[in-house]
Amino acid sequence: MLEDPVITLTTDFSLKDPFVAMMKGVILGINPKVNIVDITHSIPRHNILEASQTLSVSCKYFPPGTIHIAVVDPGVGSSRRPIMVVTESNFFIGPDNGIFSSIINEAGEDTVKVIHITEDEYFLSKKGATFHGRDIFAPVAAWLSKGLDTNQFGKQINDYLKIAVPEVTFSDGSSLTGEIISIDSFGNAISNITRDNLSSLDPSESGNRLTVSYNNTPLPLLSFYAKSKDSALSAIINSSGYLELFVNQRNAADNYHIKVGDKLTVSLTH
Amino acid sequence: MLEDPVITLTTDFSLKDPFVAMMKGVILGINPKVNIVDITHSIPRHNILEASQTLSVSCKYFPPGTIHIAVVDPGVGSSRRPIMVVTESNFFIGPDNGIFSSIINEAGEDTVKVIHITEDEYFLSKKGATFHGRDIFAPVAAWLSKGLDTNQFGKQINDYLKIAVPEVTFSDGSSLTGEIISIDSFGNAISNITRDNLSSLDPSESGNRLTVSYNNTPLPLLSFYAKSKDSALSAIINSSGYLELFVNQRNAADNYHIKVGDKLTVSLTH
Amino acid sequence: MLEDPVITLTTDFSLKDPFVAMMKGVILGINPKVNIVDITHSIPRHNILEASQTLSVSCKYFPPGTIHIAVVDPGVGSSRRPIMVVTESNFFIGPDNGIFSSIINEAGEDTVKVIHITEDEYFLSKKGATFHGRDIFAPVAAWLSKGLDTNQFGKQINDYLKIAVPEVTFSDGSSLTGEIISIDSFGNAISNITRDNLSSLDPSESGNRLTVSYNNTPLPLLSFYAKSKDSALSAIINSSGYLELFVNQRNAADNYHIKVGDKLTVSLTH
Repeated sequence: MLEDPVITLTTDFSLKDPFVAMMKGVILGINPKVNIVDITHSIPRHNILEASQTLSVSCKYFPPGTIHIAVVDPGVGSSRRPIMVVTESNFFIGPDNGIFSSIINEAGEDTVKVIHITEDEYFLSKKGATFHGRDIFAPVAAWLSKGLDTNQFGKQINDYLKIAVPEVTFSDGSSLTGEIISIDSFGNAISNITRDNLSSLDPSESGNRLTVSYNNTPLPLLSFYAKSKDSALSAIINSSGYLELFVNQRNAADNYHIKVGDKLTVSLTH
Repeated sequence: MLEDPVITLTTDFSLKDPFVAMMKGVILGINPKVNIVDITHSIPRHNILEASQTLSVSCKYFPPGTIHIAVVDPGVGSSRRPIMVVTESNFFIGPDNGIFSSIINEAGEDTVKVIHITEDEYFLSKKGATFHGRDIFAPVAAWLSKGLDTNQFGKQINDYLKIAVPEVTFSDGSSLTGEIISIDSFGNAISNITRDNLSSLDPSESGNRLTVSYNNTPLPLLSFYAKSKDSALSAIINSSGYLELFVNQRNAADNYHIKVGDKLTVSLTH
Repeated sequence: MLEDPVITLTTDFSLKDPFVAMMKGVILGINPKVNIVDITHSIPRHNILEASQTLSVSCKYFPPGTIHIAVVDPGVGSSRRPIMVVTESNFFIGPDNGIFSSIINEAGEDTVKVIHITEDEYFLSKKGATFHGRDIFAPVAAWLSKGLDTNQFGKQINDYLKIAVPEVTFSDGSSLTGEIISIDSFGNAISNITRDNLSSLDPSESGNRLTVSYNNTPLPLLSFYAKSKDSALSAIINSSGYLELFVNQRNAADNYHIKVGDKLTVSLTH
């Protein structure tokens, strides 16, 4: 038995229906020592990419050995394979539909082990239509939290599904282009451009001032939100390490009609 | 003390106000070893029937000995009696307003014990208006989770209130009529017709193909959601064992104007 | 290590984004024995006063020694000091922006100790913009729950920020004026007038019947919600001990256009 096991849940189920609670009941029936934490159940319906990115940003803050269940699955009930992704420090359990693509990209494909979960002695036995979250992912996570070896759940596979995660492109050593990947509930628009991306721009040739541009307009790059004293659109490297567009104490996405997929460029200038 | 006790909460309080948190604080003050799980706090305001059915569907997935608190009570503060329903494997605590009718129907009236909770030494002592969830149900559940006998909380009663739960009717051995009892947040419309109801139709006389009809229109009965490739209204026996109307990846209730109370028929045909 | 530590969270983050989950992950990484309880994450954005009052009403129901984190901070990322407020029975951790004013008022300023949290060995170490909830408040609360002395986190201060909390005024011994301080999700309008305020009115001179007036109209003062059989606006001393305006089974605030800040008077009459 792992000491003080933690299992997290990321879904598009909302909290109105009892689906999330059923999963928790199943987990506690197998391992009552588990701490269950909701990451979010408000992933936009069927948005696998957003689930993938939310999980990738959040899992860093959980203790090593945490088991993360993610269920966003437009094809639920079909022949979608249940999989387990094992990284150096964490476990991820969910459908084989690309939901762990961000995790796998960041960890590096050659460092992760992906298992096709087939051993149904660890499933919830029942008749009829399968709710994978409750009948497969929850019990498998609970059994894993009791200390079972990952190989007991099935065989390793390499042909797991990956989805395209928007990537940052460098047009030359001194400028890059990324895009907005999510809007948070404050209306802040978060891009896929990381602090490390910015650091990799080479100041030797083209200057040493970063200029962020959105819609062909340069934006001030500030060190914290309260620095912006007016309602101008501004940029910041947020607390998760991503470049973000915001308006101080306002909803930037609404005020400036920013949408997921909008492009952002950053250049070094004099 | 029960080992690893679990207490669940089902209410119409929403999570905006701190009422649910107050209940949790009271529980943890009495028994800090309890695992508290929210089933839902989004029962439509004052909808006792929906609370009853949500609890009935969900409680099956929790470990034996789980204590379920349910609070949906338009008459809160009146002389409504607090009760405890004891089934073979679970405990239910809430107001005597019919909220446990589905539980009692399913367990069988003669197998359950219903106690009128009167022993106020287990209540939260305070002046003024009583919030039953926080002042009676939460502390009683917490004391029960410490291993007290159910008889310590009051005397058994038989005149508890029951509400009419919509029932499936069989017009002859080969057809039945049920109705929609809830719409989930995906827009799926769930009926009160169970897999067992369908199995009880007698195929010897009238054929062996099940035909589901809604609004006098026959619907395809599929084995999983993704089987439906277009936007046609379809039927499925869902993962809780109930017949459900859905549109693959869409909101069936909105698209087809399905409401709680709408009738469904199922017939055996050639 | 405190036995069975409880940490609560009160924020305006909503549950859509993973910010709350990140805080929980950080806490469990430091002290996996903590019971974490959400009070609410639906404080209206940037409404410090409502957070202050919600926390003050709720914390009474938690066990002694509970650690309450509150984060509602329009100035996040600025030079706002992180503070810890130590009362006789509880700990409060959050920004120095007045969010604990109701707590401090109620406890009495001379009975509380306020510490400026400066010892960054207890912070989450990371590069870049700071998310105080996750990087300072969560880890400090977790370390405190392990039994560290409050003085290990920084020095005591007296110049902490206070915000004006609406107070009840007595025009003479037999009448008082208060105001609506929040609307709950049932549409009930809660004032800052307490049962103790009403008790302090002197019946010897002016009669012994309490008359509650709103908008120059006297309202019935009832002992519980279900007593009101029609849709008239009525008053009650609610289960938290505050005078509240309600309409039985309806939304009083919507029906009677009641807003936060509206005045209420109570007089003793014959």
